[in-house]
Amino acid sequence: MKMPQASNTRHDRTLIALADPTRRAILQRLTGGEARVTDLAEPFEISLNSVSKHIKMLERAQLVRRRVRGREHFLSFNPRPVDQALAWMETQRDLWTMRLRALDQILQEEDCAAARTQRGLP
Amino acid sequence: MKMPQASNTRHDRTLIALADPTRRAILQRLTGGEARVTDLAEPFEISLNSVSKHIKMLERAQLVRRRVRGREHFLSFNPRPVDQALAWMETQRDLWTMRLRALDQILQEEDCAAARTQRGLP
Repeated sequence: MKMPQASNTRHDRTLIALADPTRRAILQRLTGGEARVTDLAEPFEISLNSVSKHIKMLERAQLVRRRVRGREHFLSFNPRPVDQALAWMETQRDLWTMRLRALDQILQEEDCAAARTQRGLP
Repeated sequence: MKMPQASNTRHDRTLIALADPTRRAILQRLTGGEARVTDLAEPFEISLNSVSKHIKMLERAQLVRRRVRGREHFLSFNPRPVDQALAWMETQRDLWTMRLRALDQILQEEDCAAARTQRGLP
């Protein structure tokens, strides 16, 4: 077995960013158009500081872009990393499914061979 | 905007469990067949304790099942939560894409209306 590699960190960041209901609500809000941090924080019953941290995580995962205009920061949603993470997860799933299927076949063949031996067949 | 709900925790657990290269390597190993914790820990350059913690996270996400036989614990891979998380992520992505597309259309219509007004059209 190969050593696990610290690769795929980009997709990992996407998955971790999406694995939180507050962050998903922020993204959903941004699909309605650009917003400022204070606008985004308003409907949440958590501190502005917490909302800022969630936004930082979304920016690190490139799910949120920031546009600065004078003193104002405008945030928008970038759907690209979601598509990329989905494609990558599907590949992982397919690889795992293939391996499980191959294992299943080996086990079935072993069962067959054992049954033949029990019946005294070659 | 609706308050974010602490829902979807099952899928969140799946995403967080999958968002780590060590845990993915453990799952990949388990697609080759059942294994004991000590077998799983062997190829990793991290402590047995760390590997146990990763396995606990995988079990909480129901990606790993544990079968106890006497003193021995055997672990196996359950691919079902991966499929469920993928289906759910695709739904989220589709909803977001739909909203972005609707927003795009509104903006284009506004651009058109602005252009007509500039040209003095009704």
